[in-house]
Amino acid sequence: MAASPYQQLEEEFRRLHAFRGALALLRWDAAVMMSRGSAEVRGDQLAAIEMECHALLTSPKVSRLLDRAQANGQMLEDWQIANLREMRRQRDHAIATPNHLISRLAKASARAEIHWMEARRSGQFADVAPHLAEVVSLMRDRAALLGSHLGLSPYDALIDEFSPGVTTAEIDGLFKAVGHRLPAMVRDALSAQAAIPVVPLVGKFPASKQRALCVEVMKSLGFPFERGRLDESEHPFTEGMAGDIRITTRFNPADPFQGLLGALHETGHALYDLGLPAEWRSQPVGRNRGMALEESQSLIFEKMVVRSRPFLSYLKPLLEKHYGVSGPEWEVENLYRHLTRVHHGLSRAEADELTYPAHIMMRYELEKQLLSGELSVAELPEAWNEASLSRLGIQPSNDVEGCLQDIHWYVGQFGYFPAYALGGLIAMQLWERLRIDRDELDLELARGDFSGLSGWLRTHVYEVGARMTVQDLVKEATDRPLSSAPALRYLEAKYFESNP
Amino acid sequence: MAASPYQQLEEEFRRLHAFRGALALLRWDAAVMMSRGSAEVRGDQLAAIEMECHALLTSPKVSRLLDRAQANGQMLEDWQIANLREMRRQRDHAIATPNHLISRLAKASARAEIHWMEARRSGQFADVAPHLAEVVSLMRDRAALLGSHLGLSPYDALIDEFSPGVTTAEIDGLFKAVGHRLPAMVRDALSAQAAIPVVPLVGKFPASKQRALCVEVMKSLGFPFERGRLDESEHPFTEGMAGDIRITTRFNPADPFQGLLGALHETGHALYDLGLPAEWRSQPVGRNRGMALEESQSLIFEKMVVRSRPFLSYLKPLLEKHYGVSGPEWEVENLYRHLTRVHHGLSRAEADELTYPAHIMMRYELEKQLLSGELSVAELPEAWNEASLSRLGIQPSNDVEGCLQDIHWYVGQFGYFPAYALGGLIAMQLWERLRIDRDELDLELARGDFSGLSGWLRTHVYEVGARMTVQDLVKEATDRPLSSAPALRYLEAKYFESNP
Repeated sequence: MAASPYQQLEEEFRRLHAFRGALALLRWDAAVMMSRGSAEVRGDQLAAIEMECHALLTSPKVSRLLDRAQANGQMLEDWQIANLREMRRQRDHAIATPNHLISRLAKASARAEIHWMEARRSGQFADVAPHLAEVVSLMRDRAALLGSHLGLSPYDALIDEFSPGVTTAEIDGLFKAVGHRLPAMVRDALSAQAAIPVVPLVGKFPASKQRALCVEVMKSLGFPFERGRLDESEHPFTEGMAGDIRITTRFNPADPFQGLLGALHETGHALYDLGLPAEWRSQPVGRNRGMALEESQSLIFEKMVVRSRPFLSYLKPLLEKHYGVSGPEWEVENLYRHLTRVHHGLSRAEADELTYPAHIMMRYELEKQLLSGELSVAELPEAWNEASLSRLGIQPSNDVEGCLQDIHWYVGQFGYFPAYALGGLIAMQLWERLRIDRDELDLELARGDFSGLSGWLRTHVYEVGARMTVQDLVKEATDRPLSSAPALRYLEAKYFESNP
Repeated sequence: MAASPYQQLEEEFRRLHAFRGALALLRWDAAVMMSRGSAEVRGDQLAAIEMECHALLTSPKVSRLLDRAQANGQMLEDWQIANLREMRRQRDHAIATPNHLISRLAKASARAEIHWMEARRSGQFADVAPHLAEVVSLMRDRAALLGSHLGLSPYDALIDEFSPGVTTAEIDGLFKAVGHRLPAMVRDALSAQAAIPVVPLVGKFPASKQRALCVEVMKSLGFPFERGRLDESEHPFTEGMAGDIRITTRFNPADPFQGLLGALHETGHALYDLGLPAEWRSQPVGRNRGMALEESQSLIFEKMVVRSRPFLSYLKPLLEKHYGVSGPEWEVENLYRHLTRVHHGLSRAEADELTYPAHIMMRYELEKQLLSGELSVAELPEAWNEASLSRLGIQPSNDVEGCLQDIHWYVGQFGYFPAYALGGLIAMQLWERLRIDRDELDLELARGDFSGLSGWLRTHVYEVGARMTVQDLVKEATDRPLSSAPALRYLEAKYFESNP
């Protein structure tokens, strides 16, 4: 029997999935293994495969099959209908950007990524500025084309790519209450915490020992090392998919937690990717439901799980075993105080829960200005420093602490940062419900049993795939529409009630 | 001005070059970095990109452009005409094999490679036998189709893919004299060497120190670490191209030389690939001229350069520095005797120059039988052991020393082994001429100056690319047609005259 239009589409998207897997590996290698002099060659390879993906999505054949499959829609099951909708979504996004722009963007961002790493070593923003300027200029063209095709503003069109169905208006609305409350909460928390002593965690924690600790915790969480890897890179990330998932972190020998927190953040991403509906793995409906939800899954681990007394009770003997440490500073209560300390820090990745949203908001404002042309790349370091001072109350002493901090813009990821903010809200709303649904959670975490946690997430998040919008997913999981109220309740409770 | 048919072809082959670079990286990663459980996923990725390469080469567009460019041949320069011929050659090879067979072969060999590694660990040939049987069965189909398309016997068609323009008849003819002389030479060398004492090189040589030694020697030879890597794998190999070249070796802590010899063999490949005409890098005419010539370039380093007293004079202080060794066994003459020792060994990769051809001949016979169906995969271990005994005078005690030794068949490389034999002859013929052309070579090697050596190879081999046949290249470089005479002169001189 001849394959139906829908079946033919599944076959095309299976091919796309394989290409994307290859792209993921090429990117992983560029950040973790490749010698720096090979950036140009790698850029050509990425561009060739990205163009192939683009050609596939925009081919007349796929558009024709989409129309024919749609016409036979009554023959399809629910999952298939959702899959068809996601296929169409990908086609619509792809068709708005011409081939030559895709190719130029791929090459420009491969170059900028390498020079970003170089600039972080040299501390010279100037080393990467022309490459970032090229990426920004190409992204402006891209955002304009995408916006006009999707009927969205240029910036909203970029957000839609990372966080489908989410708009600036919605993010602004959701975050207004949180943003309004935050400065006072930070101030109050700082003053309350000033009275509570924290014994510093001093020592040398070699990368090899930090790695062994990460591996043990990741195994308990269910990370499949037989089908994945943990490596080091400048900036932690997750690449790949179920079957070959790779996360990275970075180790600081003076800090016992930075490497672990990075690894567990990425493990949160990995577990989501691994838990996506297995039978839909190669299809659009089997992918994650956008970056906001992705980030919520990493934040649940990095912020809510790790920064809890029960988890730290589980972690304490592991710290003793791997680091050979003991003493009052390694008691659970001191670790908890250490990890929930609010501070005016410069690093987004290391920010506490209360100041984190401010890091996102300043990036969100700056990237809108970069894209609109209101801000030039040359002015970025200065603008970053000013925003730091006004939003965080502290100024970077150099660009490595400043506008060279995050990789996103250098690789063309504009419109991604809002996903962190939204992801935080989603995480806190899911977490509130998860704790109601599983009242034994604390006991489980304390004994290193993560099956209850991951079981809930599997049912309510992972296995949904891209079958519904992120808004509907949150509503189904929590019986409430997405709002800022759970976040405020969570932060109030954590920073103003349960602290001793 | 619109691009000419020839220019459009160059653009298509640039794209092919990028895909092949991606494939090289995916293969490198599978052998060096990837977790074993990811084989299936990687197989899908390799298959998708290989199918894309195949689709490109066999597209009606490329065939049409080839015809049109051919018709305008009088407008083209010599390099372009040669490029057009190589494009056509690639198209002819590709078009003989249908898409579904390409895809099945890619997946089957990705699986077999992983199980080959597993079988080498477990020592159980049975672990990989069904996967090898699948590869063999698919290769039989492939050889038959290719042969009928190219007007060659099935096996000659496979040889032609690796060593263009070379046939079984030619290899048989060339090797007859060598094969005839070898058993007696081995016997005589063994008896002559029995009277010459060799002090054993005993010690522990940690991988990290061996690696540092390899890196220092490779740097002297011109390996560009800023655009390449040295790693470890089960079986040494070279992947990538100028711009991102990666070699591997394997270290045995009890053997001070195995890792270095592997690394320098692969460095020979790498230097050839790096020296190919830079302006033709992405085009068929800028590729190596087949595997026989490739192997000649690695053998010149591994066999002729390294196993010479001048090179060992250069190496001696490096061994002292990296291994912290000294004593009579580390004197040049003892090292030379160690490295030119003839022995009835089981490992092809570690074989001496005199017994090496026997290793190739047995594989050559066995793979012809496997392909013709005369020999089944189940019978292979037994047949290998019998061939070992008759050709090498020694039997493997297990399959890891036997038919699990080489990766080639498991990844579908049938018709490759003859390239080693032919490569050896080419190496010895080039080497004879090189020593005549550069009478200061020994002095240069002794002081670690490899510029004369690499300059000669660049002019006479590397920069030729695929512009002429390997037979013509050898004739232009040495003023003589390819023959076995220089090999016999070289082996006679090395093993029966210049030994003290």
